[in-house]
Amino acid sequence: MGKARYRIGVDLGGTKLAAGVVDPEGNILGEAVTYDHRGLGEEAVLALMERNVDAALAQAGAGRADAKGVGVLFPGHIRWPEGVTLTTSNLPGFKGFPLRERMEARLGIPCLADNDANAQTLGEYRYGAGRGLDPLVFLTVSTGIGGGIVIDGKLYRGFTGTAGEFGHMIVDASGDGRCTCGNSGCLMGVASGLALPETARRLAGRLEREGACPDLPGGCSDFSALDGALLAAGCADENELCRAVVDEFARYLGIGMYNVFQVLNPRAIVLGGGLLNLPDYFFDAAASTCRGLAGPMMYDRLEIKRGALGGRAAILGAAALFEA
Amino acid sequence: MGKARYRIGVDLGGTKLAAGVVDPEGNILGEAVTYDHRGLGEEAVLALMERNVDAALAQAGAGRADAKGVGVLFPGHIRWPEGVTLTTSNLPGFKGFPLRERMEARLGIPCLADNDANAQTLGEYRYGAGRGLDPLVFLTVSTGIGGGIVIDGKLYRGFTGTAGEFGHMIVDASGDGRCTCGNSGCLMGVASGLALPETARRLAGRLEREGACPDLPGGCSDFSALDGALLAAGCADENELCRAVVDEFARYLGIGMYNVFQVLNPRAIVLGGGLLNLPDYFFDAAASTCRGLAGPMMYDRLEIKRGALGGRAAILGAAALFEA
Repeated sequence: MGKARYRIGVDLGGTKLAAGVVDPEGNILGEAVTYDHRGLGEEAVLALMERNVDAALAQAGAGRADAKGVGVLFPGHIRWPEGVTLTTSNLPGFKGFPLRERMEARLGIPCLADNDANAQTLGEYRYGAGRGLDPLVFLTVSTGIGGGIVIDGKLYRGFTGTAGEFGHMIVDASGDGRCTCGNSGCLMGVASGLALPETARRLAGRLEREGACPDLPGGCSDFSALDGALLAAGCADENELCRAVVDEFARYLGIGMYNVFQVLNPRAIVLGGGLLNLPDYFFDAAASTCRGLAGPMMYDRLEIKRGALGGRAAILGAAALFEA
Repeated sequence: MGKARYRIGVDLGGTKLAAGVVDPEGNILGEAVTYDHRGLGEEAVLALMERNVDAALAQAGAGRADAKGVGVLFPGHIRWPEGVTLTTSNLPGFKGFPLRERMEARLGIPCLADNDANAQTLGEYRYGAGRGLDPLVFLTVSTGIGGGIVIDGKLYRGFTGTAGEFGHMIVDASGDGRCTCGNSGCLMGVASGLALPETARRLAGRLEREGACPDLPGGCSDFSALDGALLAAGCADENELCRAVVDEFARYLGIGMYNVFQVLNPRAIVLGGGLLNLPDYFFDAAASTCRGLAGPMMYDRLEIKRGALGGRAAILGAAALFEA
């Protein structure tokens, strides 16, 4: 084995900027995290990324010469393999910016850049719940819904790099949910953080008509303030509205997974993202919906699992852009 | 080039049994078709297939020694690559039958067997509207809805061989359409030959409430008698009910293609199947719905085309199971 045995994963988020040094087995040997890049120009962000990379290497007792590659996870669309940013609503600037090339020039280390869902997919495939499960689908449910696909050990990107946009599948054309994309009935418009306020408002109306308690959970003043943490707390307190929201989200998520199963027939679907921090019965109900739609014979051929990497998903996914 | 330069495609349908000899360029040099196998046992069907293969070879001025492989298109599920039949509602018998092995033993020519949608997908990819367009999705709309996926020049089959079941994607969870699979809102339950009677009945009710003409087209006595041919004739006669049915089918088909685009980001979607014999505006409206949902930028990256092989799709697809 040569000297350059580590890969570095950089998680360029909307508020957090982390760099981690990853060994061939997927252990994070050193990590540096900062929270002060938002609102800075692209050059200043690059400088911070460089500083965090060096700090993480120092923690690992290593230097730039030990790094075979730096993978950068970008929170938005980015052209692959060029690594030129297209759009992001999560970070000011960074439109048409040659992120990959500029980082590579600064560090003198080969660099690749990809979007967060693709990188997390690779991370779960190489080090997490999807290890060795091929074809693999990763579906992440938080504010929005995204995902990625692994076929024959590689990310499947499609013709122009946008494959795996599971959040935009239309699952309920006659339903009420509207997505930020402008369409109705997208998975993201009916089961995501973005769909939370409108879903709660609609279900509160239904609970009231049915004579059940439509109240928001304690600590929540109005529908637009409801988020994943309050929803989880409300479920723990047996708040009826929160449970109704989670039931509906789980049903739609189960339908979404069923559609993915019919199109791709993957070996496993791994679920990740912030909303999966909801109680176990959210995950169980979603998996059970998918199982019920598919029937017992078909379900035997599909594993549905929670992501296993948690907070390490971004760093490991970014690092996994380079082969170990 | 060796002597065995031809491939033979066998289309084992519910009523038609055809065999064709195909040259490396995709020309059909000889073809034999019979219609008398339905209701016979598996052995008798094998004997007829053998007879048609020999008759097609004779027409092409060739013999068994000229054939490098025989591809059989089976109208139902079949285990790949073993070629053991699983289920079909289109042909009596043929459950758990080793079709591939038995044909190979009879003919003394290498044999492969696959389901009709997969074979047609390969046919359009190698010889038809999808030539050279990779990744390719083929979507067939007739009594049911099926399809196939080509990635990197090969059929993508998924973990257990059921990938590309686009008809079972749920696109309208809150809608009225029921599918034969038992679920609601499947693409096949809202836009296929199977969905025709119920859709017409429901839309006739709506037209009546709106004061429009809810009559069935001339020659059609009740909803259950409505089929693709009557629907096409009705559209040509400007029958309002037929037009309403086609508009609704086109909208759902457009949604289905949009979902496939979001998941797979293919280079092209090729549409085939009997219902595509409907007037041009059916195809145009479906493509236009997909385009509208995706927005102009995304649509530029996707071609939507009609299949180009027509009646030759089955023979060419079956033959294409072997490389030219």
